[in-house]
Amino acid sequence: MARETKAPTERTRVKRVNQRAVYDREGIDAILDAQPLCHIGYLRDGHPFVTPTFQWREGDRVYFHGSAASQALRAATGTDICLTVSCLDGYVLARSGFHHSVNYRSVMILGKAEIVTDTDEKNTLVNNFVEGLFPGRVATLRPNNAQELKATTVLSLPISEASAKVRNGGPVDDDEDYELPIWAGVIPLRTVMDEPYDDGRVLDGVEVPDHVRNFNKF
Amino acid sequence: MARETKAPTERTRVKRVNQRAVYDREGIDAILDAQPLCHIGYLRDGHPFVTPTFQWREGDRVYFHGSAASQALRAATGTDICLTVSCLDGYVLARSGFHHSVNYRSVMILGKAEIVTDTDEKNTLVNNFVEGLFPGRVATLRPNNAQELKATTVLSLPISEASAKVRNGGPVDDDEDYELPIWAGVIPLRTVMDEPYDDGRVLDGVEVPDHVRNFNKF
Repeated sequence: MARETKAPTERTRVKRVNQRAVYDREGIDAILDAQPLCHIGYLRDGHPFVTPTFQWREGDRVYFHGSAASQALRAATGTDICLTVSCLDGYVLARSGFHHSVNYRSVMILGKAEIVTDTDEKNTLVNNFVEGLFPGRVATLRPNNAQELKATTVLSLPISEASAKVRNGGPVDDDEDYELPIWAGVIPLRTVMDEPYDDGRVLDGVEVPDHVRNFNKF
Repeated sequence: MARETKAPTERTRVKRVNQRAVYDREGIDAILDAQPLCHIGYLRDGHPFVTPTFQWREGDRVYFHGSAASQALRAATGTDICLTVSCLDGYVLARSGFHHSVNYRSVMILGKAEIVTDTDEKNTLVNNFVEGLFPGRVATLRPNNAQELKATTVLSLPISEASAKVRNGGPVDDDEDYELPIWAGVIPLRTVMDEPYDDGRVLDGVEVPDHVRNFNKF
C-alpha cells in the first residue's frame, strides 16, 4: 500500500509536532490491531462523554459492542463519534521538566457508527472478537444463543476519516542542557500477563488452553 | 471519609451493572492516583473528540497540561469536558462468549476546566506532576524558565461531578454452563518497566537515579 502523507480531512490533520503524524492505513491498522482497549467520545444531552470499551478491526471497519441496554452505546449510534486508541510505550526523561515526554502510539477515528442488524453477521462478529484475542477459543465455547445476540449491540465504524500519531526515541533537550550532569533517557513500559487462574469451577481434566497460556494481545 | 453510595448527579450515576459503581472520593482518588494516562472528551465545531493526555491530582482537582498552541487544549478550556481514566486489570474468560468480560477500574469526571494563570502556581504544578511520577527528580533538573512556562497551558478540573466503575473477580456463567468442560478464569494484566536506557549523552559519572530504577507509577 502506498504511504499516505496527507490527512484524509482537515479535522484529522495533525496540527502540532506534525512529524509524528501517520496517515497511511498500514500504520493506523497496526495500532488498532495492537491495542483492543479504546475510548469512545460521544454526546449525551449535548455534553461530551468518554467511555472505555474494546474495538476490533475487520478490513476497513472497526467494531465495538456492548449491552443493548447501554445508554452510552445508544448515544453513540448514528451520530458523530470519535474512537481513540492509545498505547503508552514509555516515559521520556529529559534534562528539563519542559522536555519530558512520552513514547506512544495513538489513533483517532471520526465518523458515524451504525448498528449491525443481521443476527448471523452479529454472531460472526462477536465470535471474531473473542477469536482475535484468544485464537481457537470460540470452538471450545457454548455457542451464543438468540437471546444473547438480541441483548448485544454491535456497532460498526468505517476507518475512512482517521489519523495516528506516534512518538518514539529519547529526549530532545536544549543544546546547552547536554552539559548538565543529569540522567536522561527512556523508561520503556510493557503490559504483561500474570499467571492465569481458573474460577475454581473448571471440571477435572480441563487444562489451561494454549490461547490462555500463550496470550499475547496487549 | 464516609463512603458515598449515591452519585453526585444524575448524569454521573452508573446505570448498568450498578453494583460496580463507586461514588466515594477515596475510591475515585485511588484510581486517579494509580493511572496518569487519561482521555479527554471535548467538542470542536460541535463534534466530539477524544485526546489522550496525562492527569495528576492535587486534593479536589485534577490537572492536565500541554502546549499553549494545542488546539485540543484550547477547545477543552472553559467548556464542558469529560476526563476518563481507565485501568485494564485483566481479561475474564467465561464458558460462553456472552459472559466474557474484563476486570477494570475507571473514573469519569465531568466539568469545566479552567486555565491556571499564575506563573508561580503553574511552575509548582508542572513540577508536582514530574515529582509525582519520579520522586526527587525535580531537584536534579534545570529549572523551568519563563518562556517554557509561557508556552505551557495547565488546566484545572474540579472533582465535583465524578463516578467510578470497578469490576474484579472471575467470570459469572449461566448455571447450566458450569457442567461444560471449558476452561474459565482470569488472565491478569500488569504494566511493567523494561530496562531503562539513557540517551547516549549522559555525562560520565552520572548514575541511573533511584527515581528511574524504582519507577512504579503505572
